[in-house]
Amino acid sequence: MERQVPHFREELEALQARLLEMGGLAEERVRAAVQGLVVRDPALIQKVLAGDEPINQLHIEVDNRCFRLLALHQPMATDLRAIVAAVKINTDLERVGDLAVNIAEAVTRYLQHPPVKELIDIPRMAEHAQEMLRKSLDAFVREDAALALEVCESDDLLDGLNGQIFRELITFMIEDPKTISRATRLVLVSRYLERFGDHATNIGELVVFMVEGRNIRHARKLGKIPEDGAA
Amino acid sequence: MERQVPHFREELEALQARLLEMGGLAEERVRAAVQGLVVRDPALIQKVLAGDEPINQLHIEVDNRCFRLLALHQPMATDLRAIVAAVKINTDLERVGDLAVNIAEAVTRYLQHPPVKELIDIPRMAEHAQEMLRKSLDAFVREDAALALEVCESDDLLDGLNGQIFRELITFMIEDPKTISRATRLVLVSRYLERFGDHATNIGELVVFMVEGRNIRHARKLGKIPEDGAA
Repeated sequence: MERQVPHFREELEALQARLLEMGGLAEERVRAAVQGLVVRDPALIQKVLAGDEPINQLHIEVDNRCFRLLALHQPMATDLRAIVAAVKINTDLERVGDLAVNIAEAVTRYLQHPPVKELIDIPRMAEHAQEMLRKSLDAFVREDAALALEVCESDDLLDGLNGQIFRELITFMIEDPKTISRATRLVLVSRYLERFGDHATNIGELVVFMVEGRNIRHARKLGKIPEDGAA
Repeated sequence: MERQVPHFREELEALQARLLEMGGLAEERVRAAVQGLVVRDPALIQKVLAGDEPINQLHIEVDNRCFRLLALHQPMATDLRAIVAAVKINTDLERVGDLAVNIAEAVTRYLQHPPVKELIDIPRMAEHAQEMLRKSLDAFVREDAALALEVCESDDLLDGLNGQIFRELITFMIEDPKTISRATRLVLVSRYLERFGDHATNIGELVVFMVEGRNIRHARKLGKIPEDGAA
């Protein structure tokens, strides 16, 4: 090793800052995709479709930073768990960015025809998922397991809305089969937003693992009753 | 450290063996869920819904093994990349297990009514995704970047089938609106199988990263033309 090894804390803080930046970008991209759907703005959707480069670059950079931290500092215990958590959070954030693209693709096709209905629950889902993501990253930086658990608990709201949207859209399609193709796009958008919430939940679970060293992922899932209607 | 530190290679091989076991279980669970759909067997679907415990246990065990390898051996270069890849592959395999549950939930509701159509492309998607997963894990254990790339390239077939199934099902729904609710379940199953293929592709990309130290994830995606019809 020829160059000087930077201080671990400094590097970890830089890593956290990058993850926050990525979270902000991912959230913003989903927000724009859903906004483009609500106000029917194809230009906004095009921007989402064309703009995943910054997140992808951050994804690679964060992985490299984690890798370097592991190689140069050989962290132990909590520090090691923080890096492993960062590797995984990085994957979740990149997937949220991909979901923004999936939503934008579905919206592109949705906008080719008149609207099926006024959209209320889909923007609600998006806002809730965005808030979950913000809180989960907050919990990561502040090492706040209680806040992280709160995020995990609040995922049920998204599952409920997704089921409700599904049933409502099926009703629309049955009443007016001309809406089938469009309404199915909305079913997919709702499903993507539910997935968005799952990624925020993953991050929450990773924060608990990082802070307390215990894996709550499957313990939580075991007690969960499967959502009705939308599977 | 009071007990003796086991040899790194031995531990890495045990880790690989667990990932292969997990891959086998995940593949088998998706196979069973799709089989239950094709032969209309609710008992088989119930088994899938009730049986995610072994994969979840392996998921925790693999994470712990990765964690221990990092803490005790402080691996460098290729070895470090192998462990980071294993952490990520572990996540992908656990998600494939979750997808089996998602498919089984959709199938449960699908089976409450007569079939929409004879199913040909959905089992084809499932078989292809299973093969992709097998090959990607093979590539991981054999450190075979060429095989891993082959897996990534073959993902297009799933995207194509997913688009085709989507268009076909929309046609069914328009011709006979009574099928809407059922056909939408099949749209979701097809989408879950496409996601399954994405996880195998992720693993392929991780193997290239592990063997060659280069990140092909976003490089590949940039050149990709968005699928038509199913977004």
